[in-house]
Amino acid sequence: MSARHISASKLEAVNKLRRRSVLAGAGGLVSGAALMGLASAQTPPQVPDDPTKVQGRPASELGDRSSFEAPRRVPSATSSLTPLDLLNGIITPSDVHYERHHAGVPLIDPRRYTLTLHGMVDRQTVFTLDDLKRFPSMSRIMFLECSGNSGSGWTKGPPTGTAQTLHGLTSTSDWTGVLVSTLMNEVAVQPGAKWVLAEGEDAAVLSRSVPIDKILDDAFIAYGQNGEALRPEQGYPARLMLPGWEGNINVKWLRRLKFGDQPFETREETSKYTDPMPDGSARQFTFAMEAKSTITWPTARIGVMPAEGPWEIRGIAWSGRGRITRVEVSTDGGQTWADARLVDPVLPMAHTRFLFPWTWSSAEAILTSRATDETGYVQPSRQDLVSVRGTGSIYHYNGQQNWRVAADGTISNYYAA
Amino acid sequence: MSARHISASKLEAVNKLRRRSVLAGAGGLVSGAALMGLASAQTPPQVPDDPTKVQGRPASELGDRSSFEAPRRVPSATSSLTPLDLLNGIITPSDVHYERHHAGVPLIDPRRYTLTLHGMVDRQTVFTLDDLKRFPSMSRIMFLECSGNSGSGWTKGPPTGTAQTLHGLTSTSDWTGVLVSTLMNEVAVQPGAKWVLAEGEDAAVLSRSVPIDKILDDAFIAYGQNGEALRPEQGYPARLMLPGWEGNINVKWLRRLKFGDQPFETREETSKYTDPMPDGSARQFTFAMEAKSTITWPTARIGVMPAEGPWEIRGIAWSGRGRITRVEVSTDGGQTWADARLVDPVLPMAHTRFLFPWTWSSAEAILTSRATDETGYVQPSRQDLVSVRGTGSIYHYNGQQNWRVAADGTISNYYAA
Repeated sequence: MSARHISASKLEAVNKLRRRSVLAGAGGLVSGAALMGLASAQTPPQVPDDPTKVQGRPASELGDRSSFEAPRRVPSATSSLTPLDLLNGIITPSDVHYERHHAGVPLIDPRRYTLTLHGMVDRQTVFTLDDLKRFPSMSRIMFLECSGNSGSGWTKGPPTGTAQTLHGLTSTSDWTGVLVSTLMNEVAVQPGAKWVLAEGEDAAVLSRSVPIDKILDDAFIAYGQNGEALRPEQGYPARLMLPGWEGNINVKWLRRLKFGDQPFETREETSKYTDPMPDGSARQFTFAMEAKSTITWPTARIGVMPAEGPWEIRGIAWSGRGRITRVEVSTDGGQTWADARLVDPVLPMAHTRFLFPWTWSSAEAILTSRATDETGYVQPSRQDLVSVRGTGSIYHYNGQQNWRVAADGTISNYYAA
Repeated sequence: MSARHISASKLEAVNKLRRRSVLAGAGGLVSGAALMGLASAQTPPQVPDDPTKVQGRPASELGDRSSFEAPRRVPSATSSLTPLDLLNGIITPSDVHYERHHAGVPLIDPRRYTLTLHGMVDRQTVFTLDDLKRFPSMSRIMFLECSGNSGSGWTKGPPTGTAQTLHGLTSTSDWTGVLVSTLMNEVAVQPGAKWVLAEGEDAAVLSRSVPIDKILDDAFIAYGQNGEALRPEQGYPARLMLPGWEGNINVKWLRRLKFGDQPFETREETSKYTDPMPDGSARQFTFAMEAKSTITWPTARIGVMPAEGPWEIRGIAWSGRGRITRVEVSTDGGQTWADARLVDPVLPMAHTRFLFPWTWSSAEAILTSRATDETGYVQPSRQDLVSVRGTGSIYHYNGQQNWRVAADGTISNYYAA
């Protein structure tokens, strides 16, 4: 490690609060490198030479980040990507949760918000937000992932990108709400109902068909996110949650659920969110997001390895089918694998962190991770995925991510030959 | 429940996107009440009559709360209180994590930050922040609680207050960092070392003595909080974490750990953070925060019950000794108790949510919760606590919290006779 051992006399100076002048004079103890996500402030704050000599700022109503830290989403007009390679937890801070919307983020007054349950029910009902909050509640830590996440993996050459720009359309939150099955008891759903139309109140009037088995199993209406109200970009004041299923079908700004006996064949499940296959057919209603993982450090984000020696490879894995049971890491492009350590708590359908010790010796290395979930499914290599699915889709890519560390330390996205 | 059943013809109108005009005309479907934490915006935004007819705002680098939601800490000069009664998760959003500091929040440049390990060690060492991040890492979801939290419980009459103002000096985060034991391997701590002085770089130069057994057991240096960098009010760029122990000893802005063979008897463990007892003695080094719980809904926060009928009592419990194993709720001031439902995941030394069904019938009720932890310890009533400890302390209060619901629905803090 690069920690410096210092003499007792210098240490004494530390204790006398003359730390900075002494240590700075002791030969470059100050690290100027932004090693792991440290952002340069736009306007560097005036930092006191000795913080112990200056009264700090008082307490406040709302805290804020250090001016030296600036995790930011990468936005386009219709989506924004979570900085996975700057984060180190399993819960994504709400203000950097990914966004994806088809007609922007609507502004909805929670006092006027209603959710209507109708169709094949005996008692059509309009619920206010207060109604939803009054029912017996539940909470669940789970990921969401846009089915287009990692979609650049379908392209021929390896695209330039970071863990954020390649895979940042996924985030995990602690969601709170009410089970849809609880609401179904209120409206008395009829026996013949097999599908449910979920419709949003955005300008896309986004709508999807959901099989009733999933609705009965674990679907819920979320009004809470990470302890507070749902954020506007994630569907404020309430949205549908379908644990493990592609983001799009977790309809945001949810205004109605219509019960029917067949799928409603909406635009979002015919022209979009289907997978053209090599034989000319198309996969439809491919809801569950399969196991995926990516290393988040070291990646192209840092550009180049800071130094030789011992490091910790870090990343995240997740599966829409349940718990992650294993993550393996390869440093030689998949020739050999070894188990990474999983960080507790390992929760079903939630981002799971993995850690793996590695020593870099200025030789080329191809760093890859592969996740296994509780169904036994193993995240495939890109070649294996493409051999089955072709390259005609833009959705549901979950091939292994390779990061090539060149002998000079340069890091880039990499496709195996 | 208060949900409204509507006719099929009205429903059809909903489907034709003329929802608001029809439903508003259908007799007050709009709820004007701020039932559960809905805040009035300072300047109400211009909400479109029909959000589906207006393009929403585009994606952004950083998200923000709905302008209708305003969870805020209650600040004094030296602390701020988490709005427990507005939250519904186990992780506290970082910007409403409670604050408590003795000389304000210092501004520290992470590029100049160092942590020194010295004293009874063979290799005194100065670690930079990058050094700390390079070591094998760990994460832990755990609460912090100021030992002065709930301290108004020691006063004679029941103070006016909410769950936030009475108990808001506790929060839970997902912390990431490096075990102190990992750093100890680097510096080779000598066999005779029994205590460790932890010192902060704030203007209070806050310092505390920590038994080495705790340091070896589970102490860590946190540089991450809820997935991102530690927040300034919680010790940016790095702090000591001692799972389950009173907040003050989890020294923020940590600049050194000195290993010695006896406690250092600092100001914060002699004049403060000790408990005067009825017999004239004082308890010192009372580190672990005992099991506590409070109902967070309904409480004085909402002022008055919104209506008769079925409701869900909600709250949080936590213990510095491990997992919460049971929370019981009483609605008759402790005469009878019944088990509440605990919300998964139930993690050691982390806030744990509990839920309890209750029907209010416009009769007086005294709502109380009591937590049991995995050691078998049961949160005491105020009377039982005071009978042992007297009322001379201002720290370590963990008596049961009673909320009195009067027959007219008014809710207030309440001491049993």
